[in-house]
Formats: sequence, C-alpha cells, structure tokens
Amino acid sequence: MRTFNFAAGPAMLPPEVVQRVRAELPDGQRGGMSVLELPFTGRGFREIAAAAQRDLGELLGVPPHYRILFMHGGASAQFAAVPLNLAGPLDKADYIETGHWARKAVREAGRYCDARVAASGAAEGFTRVPMQDEWRLSADAAYCHITTNETANGLEYHWTPDTGGVPLVADMSSNFLAGPIDVSRYGLIYAAAQKNIGTAGLAIVIVRADLLDRRQCAAPSVLNYSVQAASDSMYNTPPIFAVYVAGLVFDWLKRQGGLTAMARINRRKSARLYDAIDRSGGFYRCPVARADRSRVNVCFTVAEGRLEAEFLRQAEEEGLLNLKGHSAVGGIRASLYNAMPEEGVAALADFMQHFAARYG
Amino acid sequence: MRTFNFAAGPAMLPPEVVQRVRAELPDGQRGGMSVLELPFTGRGFREIAAAAQRDLGELLGVPPHYRILFMHGGASAQFAAVPLNLAGPLDKADYIETGHWARKAVREAGRYCDARVAASGAAEGFTRVPMQDEWRLSADAAYCHITTNETANGLEYHWTPDTGGVPLVADMSSNFLAGPIDVSRYGLIYAAAQKNIGTAGLAIVIVRADLLDRRQCAAPSVLNYSVQAASDSMYNTPPIFAVYVAGLVFDWLKRQGGLTAMARINRRKSARLYDAIDRSGGFYRCPVARADRSRVNVCFTVAEGRLEAEFLRQAEEEGLLNLKGHSAVGGIRASLYNAMPEEGVAALADFMQHFAARYG
Repeated sequence: MRTFNFAAGPAMLPPEVVQRVRAELPDGQRGGMSVLELPFTGRGFREIAAAAQRDLGELLGVPPHYRILFMHGGASAQFAAVPLNLAGPLDKADYIETGHWARKAVREAGRYCDARVAASGAAEGFTRVPMQDEWRLSADAAYCHITTNETANGLEYHWTPDTGGVPLVADMSSNFLAGPIDVSRYGLIYAAAQKNIGTAGLAIVIVRADLLDRRQCAAPSVLNYSVQAASDSMYNTPPIFAVYVAGLVFDWLKRQGGLTAMARINRRKSARLYDAIDRSGGFYRCPVARADRSRVNVCFTVAEGRLEAEFLRQAEEEGLLNLKGHSAVGGIRASLYNAMPEEGVAALADFMQHFAARYG
Repeated sequence: MRTFNFAAGPAMLPPEVVQRVRAELPDGQRGGMSVLELPFTGRGFREIAAAAQRDLGELLGVPPHYRILFMHGGASAQFAAVPLNLAGPLDKADYIETGHWARKAVREAGRYCDARVAASGAAEGFTRVPMQDEWRLSADAAYCHITTNETANGLEYHWTPDTGGVPLVADMSSNFLAGPIDVSRYGLIYAAAQKNIGTAGLAIVIVRADLLDRRQCAAPSVLNYSVQAASDSMYNTPPIFAVYVAGLVFDWLKRQGGLTAMARINRRKSARLYDAIDRSGGFYRCPVARADRSRVNVCFTVAEGRLEAEFLRQAEEEGLLNLKGHSAVGGIRASLYNAMPEEGVAALADFMQHFAARYG
C-alpha cells in the first residue's frame, strides 16, 4: 500500500531526494567516501555548500546585499539568536503573537531584551492573523518579529507587513519555499530545515547585510550572525549532512519549475482539503478565518470530538499517516509541504468524504 | 584502489555503518518512510534515541546519577553552553590550556564568566600536558575545564585530574569512545559527534544530575542542560539523522567488543605510527612529549619542511587522504579514530618508510 506522511516536521521529503541520498552513498562494492565523512574545509563539502547557497539564492531571488547563513539547531535556537544578535538587553522588540510558535519566540526573546507583544490573536484562540492596523508598534523597536505560518494553529500571512524603518524579522519555518517571497521586504528571515528544506539540525538565515553591523555580542559564537557570515557559515563544523540534503532539495525545486510552480500546486492542494471541510455540512470544521488559512498546515476538527480518534485510526489504516494535530492544539492537521504529492491530498480528501458519509 | 580517510573530523565512519544507513533508506521500489522523515515525537524516533542512549550508557558504564543529552551543534556550542549553564557572570572557572581547542574554549567562556587559565602549555608550543602540580586552581571555581585530547596539536591526557570538590568538565570530542573512561570522575563530559560518534550537528553531553540544579538561566533554551534533560533532549526537534547514525555507531562498537577492545586496537594503531616516526632517524619528528602523545591524532612534521607538500601529494596518490595538519598548527596529522582499520595505518606506516628512504 502506498502511504503518505502528513507529519508537520520532520516531514516527508521528495522521494527523488531520498533516492539520491541513497544512490550517492557508497554501496560497499566500489568503496569510496560518503558525504558524511567529508572534511568540511575540503573542496568536496565547500562545493556542496556553495551550490546549495547559490540555488537557494536563485529560487528566492535573494538580493546581493543579503547573506545566506547555514546554522546549527532549528528555529528554536533562532528564537534566542535573533534578540541576542539584533537587540541589546534594554532594547524593545515587537512580536506579533499569532499562535503556538510566535508565543514561544516572544517568550524566549523576553529573556534577552524588552520583547513586547504588539498584537495578539490569543483572545480569539489564534484563529486569525491580527491586521496591521491593530498592531501597536514601537517606532524605536530593534525589530518586529512575525511568524509567517503557524504550524500548530494552521494560519498564515498572505500579505507582507510594512514596518517602516524597523526591520521585519520572520520565522518562515513552515512556509519557507512554499511560494515566492519578496526578500527585500524583510530584514531577516529564518527557517528550520525539517519542513520544506530537508532534515533537522539546520536553520537557514537570510539576513540583510547592514544588520550584521549591529554586532551585539551576547550570542554564543555558533549563533552569532556576524561570526558565521564572516566565516561563510564555517565558524565550526557545519551540520554537513543537513546542508547536503538541503542542496538536493533546492536542486529538485529548480527542476519542478521553482517557487512559482510550487505556489500553484500548494494552492491547489490546500484548496482541495479546505473544500472537503467546507462542503462537509459541518462534519469537519476549520477554526481559522478563511483569509488566513495556511497553505501548508491544514488544521481542522471533527465536530463530534469523540470521532477524532477513530478518524486518525482509520486514516492510518489507509496509509494516511501522522495526521494528529499538535499536542498544544489538538484536532487534526494535514501538513502539505512541497514534497506531498497531489495524489496524497486526493487520497486524504476522498477518505474524509467517505468517513463523513459513514459517520455524519 | 582502496583509500583511507585520515581526516580529523568529519572523519571516517565504519563502512558497516555507512552500509547500514544505505540499506535502511527506502530503495524506491518498496516505498516507505526514511529515518529522515520520522516525526521526532513518534515511537519510531523515540525508540532510536532511547536505544542510542542505552547503548552509550552501557559502553561507558555511565552511572545512574548522570544524564545523557543529545544536543544541537558541535563542541563549539558547548564552549558557550558550559559557562552559561554552570557559572554565573561573576563566577570563576579554571581552564587548562593545552592547545588550539582548549584556547577556543577558554576564550568563549571568558565572554560569560571569569574564565581563568589555571595552567598553559602555550610557552612550550603545546607540546605537553601541564602536570597537575603546575595547575593553579581556585578552590571556589564553578568548574575546572580540560580538553582530554587536542585534535590539532596531537596531545592527550593519559590520566584523570583530581579537582576535589570542583566539578571536572571535559571536552572529549576527539578521544570520546577511544577507550574506557571512569565517568564518575567527571562532573560533565561533552563531545562533538563528527569524530568518533557519527555525523556533524550533534554534541553528546553527559552531566552529573546535581549540576542540573545550578539552573543558571542565561543559556538559550536549546543549549540549556536543565531544559533538555527535562524534555529528554526533545525540547525542540533534535538532529534526528545524527542521533540515528550515533546509535548505529554505538551498536557497531558493542559488536567490536566495546571500549576495552577499541582501546587495545587504538594503542596498537598509534604505536605503529609513532614507531615509524621515532625510527626514521629524525626524518619525521613528533613535537609532543612521549607521555602525552595522542592515540587518535598523530601529529608530526617532515624535518625538511619543503618535503611536506610532496609527502601529502604522494600520500594522496596512494589513497592516503586528508593528512594535512590543522591550519593553525601546520605539519601532518593522521587521525586514527575507531573506524580507521589497522590496514589503513599499516599502509600509512609503509608509505612513510618508503618516502623517508627515498628522500632521507
């Protein structure tokens, strides 16, 4: 039976990428050195890292005055790295609290600077993205932080805020590479690898070069943007395998037609599931405001809550895996990153319809 | 031609481990989910992590009042994590400066506490480990930090210091698992994975449980020992692939007879190279005091310096790869981690002899 992995991250990789990892490992007959064994200062790995950086720059159209960094750890490390690099202990930083992950980001930042919740969707249970005219921004903030997609809550910005002279910092972990973005609107973008980039243990940071000059010095050197930029992300041994896999994914994305093509497919995939929800006559419910629904994490509930466990059990029997919602939120969540094929979404939509027909 | 990779890290892995990684990746025919795609909260990964932890505990005989943590980043992240977790900003910490890596550790620590060089081999060019009666320790230090093997300089502690009531903290990155150790003599041990454990992007920390109670709170949460211990190293998505590879290596080590067997083999391997150096009539020179020579990083020079480039070139032609010394030190370095077979060492020793005979 063909299975589809709807996990939120670590998530499905393009099967072609997994095949290539396998094919490029020595097979025991020919001998040779695997990518896992490459010295990071040698030409072999440098070429891998340079190609990954170049391909990512092309895919996103990263302007020349931005730097792409490959850093250890995931987005949670960046929750600390952002204030430690961009703000002093007394500086203000504005956070837009849109859900579980934005909340984690602002809590961590509060340990290092005067982090303020400039707008929050908490009172509404994180079911919509606060509109910009509701934000109470500080003109003298060191930066303004947003979470462009809330993986646990299933909501996404479909617009880019304007924060004037205050650099916009975005955690894009779960919708990075889901479609084109205008990098020039952001001061800094970061994303954990284990969703749309590759494998866990790597975060990608895209930072406008002038922000490197802030040189706040509290960050551990491995999390210091200036240090990593100056050493081309090789201050210490990088997570070589994760960089390698990211490079394979970028190459795969280019061959799929790049991010415009991905955006079109992703729109189609998520629309199919939201249709299945909206046409279920209330059997399924998506709590998120229509305008803010995520293209990549479709979160919903079964109106009769007692049926959720049965839904998950039967889905798994059908090969539709890891559909359980985030533990902090509950419900059901289908993550539709770039690697999820339309067949997988079709199979889930069909299953939802049959399940609703049987129990509705 | 069979090649041997003498790189200092990322380094050679046991070929059986690389084969197993390959064999366990889906082959495109059967389908299925690769280890790269496992949700870290699911049973699949939890079992991998638990087995790795259990096997490491067995190999080292880790006492029950110690915790084993899998953390993001390499040893360089620990250079900051150690003071951030164990010392307040005004606390003293003693460092024994034995070479390139100890120096990096004390410099990073100096950003977060009153880090002192309690003994240094710098004046002698890091050619011996300062004996304990030369150390000027502070009785009220938060900890005393040593580097049990200097990867770049090729020297190693063959004894365990006694620091009384002050916890002994050891960077064991390059000689971790090279032989048995008495964990109970240490307050905290850390090691980067890319030498004797597996693949880069993971550090293993073994910490005495009472040290978790210090709860210094300056560390980013991902680098916070208490936070990671409380969440079983799953505060955020762990570097799943690196944990998986570490588990395969631990399993391999158990099947080789464990660390006593490895120590015997490692002693034999390094003795073979040191013999080749010492019997070369001065053609090769090892600057390190005999008592402190490393079992795992054999560093030497060709007395006639102009021959070094030729040595490296010809060695590479013979399949003896990555023998260039660390850029901060120069010379030649052969790293002999557990995965390096005795045939590789024999091939290098033979090459050294022929090269000396030709140019000596």
